[in-house]
Amino acid sequence: MTAYEMLKEKGLLTKDTLAASVNGKTVDLAQEIGDNADISPLTFEDKEGKRVLWHTCSHVLAAAVKRLYPSAKLAIGPSIDEGFYYDFDSDTPFTQDALAEIEKEMEKIIKENPKEEKFELSRENAKKLMESRNEPYKLLLIDRIPEGELISFYSQGDFVDLCAGPHLYSVGAIKAFKLTQSTGAYWEGNSKNKMLQRIYGIAFTKKDDLKEYLEMRAEAEKRDHNKLGRELEFFTTVDYIGQGLPILLPKGAKTIQLLQRFVEDEECRRGWQITKTPFFAKSDLYKISGHWDHYKDGMFIMGDEEKDDEVFALRPMTCPFQYQVFLNRARSYRDLPMRLNETSTLFRNESSGEMHGLIRVRQFTISEGHLICTPEQLEEEFRGCLDLVLYMMKALGFDKDIYYRFSQWDPDNRDKYIGTPEQWDEAQSTMKRILDDLGIKYSIGIGEAAFYGPKLDVQMRNVHGKEDTLVTIQIDQMLAENFGMEYVDRDGQKKTPYIIHRTSIGCYERTLAYLIEKYAGAIPFWCAPEQIRLLPIGDGQLEYAKSLEKKLSALNFRVTVDDRNEKIGYKIREGQVEKIPYMLILGEKEVNEGTVSVRRRTKGDIGAMSVEDFISKAAEEAENLAVDF
Amino acid sequence: MTAYEMLKEKGLLTKDTLAASVNGKTVDLAQEIGDNADISPLTFEDKEGKRVLWHTCSHVLAAAVKRLYPSAKLAIGPSIDEGFYYDFDSDTPFTQDALAEIEKEMEKIIKENPKEEKFELSRENAKKLMESRNEPYKLLLIDRIPEGELISFYSQGDFVDLCAGPHLYSVGAIKAFKLTQSTGAYWEGNSKNKMLQRIYGIAFTKKDDLKEYLEMRAEAEKRDHNKLGRELEFFTTVDYIGQGLPILLPKGAKTIQLLQRFVEDEECRRGWQITKTPFFAKSDLYKISGHWDHYKDGMFIMGDEEKDDEVFALRPMTCPFQYQVFLNRARSYRDLPMRLNETSTLFRNESSGEMHGLIRVRQFTISEGHLICTPEQLEEEFRGCLDLVLYMMKALGFDKDIYYRFSQWDPDNRDKYIGTPEQWDEAQSTMKRILDDLGIKYSIGIGEAAFYGPKLDVQMRNVHGKEDTLVTIQIDQMLAENFGMEYVDRDGQKKTPYIIHRTSIGCYERTLAYLIEKYAGAIPFWCAPEQIRLLPIGDGQLEYAKSLEKKLSALNFRVTVDDRNEKIGYKIREGQVEKIPYMLILGEKEVNEGTVSVRRRTKGDIGAMSVEDFISKAAEEAENLAVDF
Repeated sequence: MTAYEMLKEKGLLTKDTLAASVNGKTVDLAQEIGDNADISPLTFEDKEGKRVLWHTCSHVLAAAVKRLYPSAKLAIGPSIDEGFYYDFDSDTPFTQDALAEIEKEMEKIIKENPKEEKFELSRENAKKLMESRNEPYKLLLIDRIPEGELISFYSQGDFVDLCAGPHLYSVGAIKAFKLTQSTGAYWEGNSKNKMLQRIYGIAFTKKDDLKEYLEMRAEAEKRDHNKLGRELEFFTTVDYIGQGLPILLPKGAKTIQLLQRFVEDEECRRGWQITKTPFFAKSDLYKISGHWDHYKDGMFIMGDEEKDDEVFALRPMTCPFQYQVFLNRARSYRDLPMRLNETSTLFRNESSGEMHGLIRVRQFTISEGHLICTPEQLEEEFRGCLDLVLYMMKALGFDKDIYYRFSQWDPDNRDKYIGTPEQWDEAQSTMKRILDDLGIKYSIGIGEAAFYGPKLDVQMRNVHGKEDTLVTIQIDQMLAENFGMEYVDRDGQKKTPYIIHRTSIGCYERTLAYLIEKYAGAIPFWCAPEQIRLLPIGDGQLEYAKSLEKKLSALNFRVTVDDRNEKIGYKIREGQVEKIPYMLILGEKEVNEGTVSVRRRTKGDIGAMSVEDFISKAAEEAENLAVDF
Repeated sequence: MTAYEMLKEKGLLTKDTLAASVNGKTVDLAQEIGDNADISPLTFEDKEGKRVLWHTCSHVLAAAVKRLYPSAKLAIGPSIDEGFYYDFDSDTPFTQDALAEIEKEMEKIIKENPKEEKFELSRENAKKLMESRNEPYKLLLIDRIPEGELISFYSQGDFVDLCAGPHLYSVGAIKAFKLTQSTGAYWEGNSKNKMLQRIYGIAFTKKDDLKEYLEMRAEAEKRDHNKLGRELEFFTTVDYIGQGLPILLPKGAKTIQLLQRFVEDEECRRGWQITKTPFFAKSDLYKISGHWDHYKDGMFIMGDEEKDDEVFALRPMTCPFQYQVFLNRARSYRDLPMRLNETSTLFRNESSGEMHGLIRVRQFTISEGHLICTPEQLEEEFRGCLDLVLYMMKALGFDKDIYYRFSQWDPDNRDKYIGTPEQWDEAQSTMKRILDDLGIKYSIGIGEAAFYGPKLDVQMRNVHGKEDTLVTIQIDQMLAENFGMEYVDRDGQKKTPYIIHRTSIGCYERTLAYLIEKYAGAIPFWCAPEQIRLLPIGDGQLEYAKSLEKKLSALNFRVTVDDRNEKIGYKIREGQVEKIPYMLILGEKEVNEGTVSVRRRTKGDIGAMSVEDFISKAAEEAENLAVDF
């Protein structure tokens, strides 16, 4: 019986069914299956259903390319997280015009609606087939298939491709598609190999879904901090400095300075003491902490253990450095809880493929803290750390966007961690109890823990839908033990404290990226690099503008005067493009009446008001943090 | 004729004369000199006069040691910046008791007042003499004297030592001396050689000078930030982290945070824009800047050029990073002057012998800025930079302690620098003109320039009399050229701008060290980590104390409550030791009357006053920065 037949028999088949999940494995509807199989239908709503549609569409793309460019050689064409691609060895690059032509050909093929037929061949016959079709990359791929594994092909009308599947029953289920871009890509991703031409695409089962997707993409493109952040001169990068090492230009640096002060002040109010510890240390430190054994690949190392007296490494985390503050003298329960925070710079040796704008970088600055406490204080202090995080998320307007992940160790991969299974059970059950007491809704991330303990991660998605951790709160006793951290309790006994590792607003570079993306570059008033721009209509209002600038600056507003000899309309348009929250237009009338004509970026002209009224309005807005005005 | 005779003939000889300067060279009074020699007397007031006295006294020390410990072998005994030392190979270490005994023997020798007699020997006879006296280190030293140079000795009664001189006429001129300490020291400073015993001493021509010196030393010991700064918990160091990598504890970190914000705010007011650039870069950057060729030994390198695709180095300066802000787009004269500042962390691979507390470290944070301007703007902008420096020095109370050095290149050591002699002449004469226009009094430091341009260095001395550069202002066009920095001028021509490299308060760690030393740990009120401590006499005043704490904190004062169950006298003593500027004693009377009893650390009890009066007083003091209250 085929999957199709069984689904039909069980009444599970609908017109939306694209493939089937059989005993947890995705298969073609035409696949023959056993009688007792556990089966369910897959539609475009399912992640695996999408994958089948996208992968089948990559074959439609390849078939179209072969019709139009018969000499193009086929490499590989997988589905990816968002759509699919196919790599071709082709002498001519695929221009926008070429992509449009290929799309037309694909439409023809889909209208023809060929059935997808799977067949298997011996290695010898498989190679003969691909030789006859002159596909050298496929021959290389056949050679790599291990002895004993099936070598399967899919045919789609005239088109035949080496492929493990699964596929749609027929290509007609593809109701809408789009080729999104064409780039170069090395064969096997290796820069020593030939550069091939990669075409990316996306496909849907409904025309409206494609439309919605393209609109979302266009909006994401506009908000993408890696594009917009450069255009608005928040940051840049320079090839000869290196990847993942952004240069924060005055606007980006100003917003980070404001965020940093806001965080440091709020932390101070909540009883955190600031520290400033070194950015690197001898390998000796990391051998005690466990980083040398469990995190070395992620660190930048200076020197060679075989040759040099001293080997140093840049710090990937602040913990072993900040612990030295506690260790500076003998401690008792009277010193606890000890809340230490630091505006800390960290360094991680990310691989080049992973780096992205301000979100994934090799050097970043973070509000990192360690709270050292007794077991009795742990839950209340954890609650305090979470409350601080929520305050920060509200200040940024992120509180509706975040969600939680309880990151646990992977007991099947013990080498990644320090400590015993008993210690992990203890730490994780303590954390679970606290999270449940606090009523936090979380998903569980197996293998996402730090090497020394479990984490509560605060997650958010960027404009491209990719997930990042913004903030983390962790529980640890294992590192504390490694460093011999102890306090004398009321009963005179020496005990190991609990340590909460935590960030409060996360890493400033990443936070800035998320601010740019969420607000499409219009940073909230309270942390905008330039808050108010004064636009004198002519030279006659320049003196008034300068006196207002002085007055507003003295009140700590970030204000400038556009004193260029340009038309007022031009000045306003430029201010809009630069996303300046307030523009105050100053003409003769305003000078005579001592008023300002206010343009709010989001609302346009909101009329004239007295300088004092404007000041109260702006001060109130600054006070209210990210609440929308 | 001897120097002595010529000085006498010219009427230049006084009883204070210790040696003579002949044609710019320091010589013995007994030295025979030519008739036309340019001669002047040297006394203890002259640096070289001091050196002669101290070096002679090192021979007195050696003679005394040989009398008491005949088996001790003589190594070397030079004068140093402050006194002298002599290294001995001796089986017994020199204890405090031994030093006292040696001092007594030295007094005897000085009373005997032997004449210092210089004589020369052939290499063969010199070696015979030292062999007969069983001095193996002197034999090694004789072997090192180049062929053709004179081999000279000085005798002092029975004592004879290989020595180039010059010396006193007789040891009687040493009126007071002190052996200050004894330490181990490797022969030739090489840890692979034998450890010798080094005795340090100091000597004077007046008994009162010694007394004054010892008092000053005792005071310096008390103020030494490397001792006091640890005791007061401003900072600490940890062996397994490494030398030159201090950990700033909450008090030290708080003061640095306050200084940093003060500097950033003042710079912002003066039109500087903040940036935030990466702490390391690929070697490619440093090859353009010239650091790779001229500064590599001072940098921390990550990776190996022979093996790795990318080699990185931690930045020793901010210049090539901050230049990227200018280079981010095409610039015209309208963009100039562009004033860029950064709270920048730098890394320098100091050798272990040079590191000292917070003053000379491997990582430090500095307010570093670059001002890019046209030639026409240079002088005024330089004046602005200097004005900012003076404002900062006044804020710290350092303005009476600083002095200036005009640091120039060393034309005899061209490898150390980029650029041509013509470029250096141009840069140095421009700088000289500006300094002279501004009426700055400076000394000249040949070979003290940066590798890319001349500097005006603001110098200060620590408690041990050692000189450091606190702040520097530099002029550069050569680095700008290397990076292809250009602006389009009014005439449409592309031109290379001038760049002023400058710091404003210097490096924060060093500034903190100087604050601790100048104020013996009592950091000025405005940047003290804890400004006000509230001391309730009993539990009955606790509530009042807490409400006052809240009120004062809301006004941004840094305030704590000592709520421990301790006697008020004990709490006050502790506050004094911790150098808290204000302690407010709160008893029943204060609660009833709504007042506070104020103790100013420097003045003791200054009486009761209303809370409002205290607040105005404290606010005024904070406003006044380092003016003494």
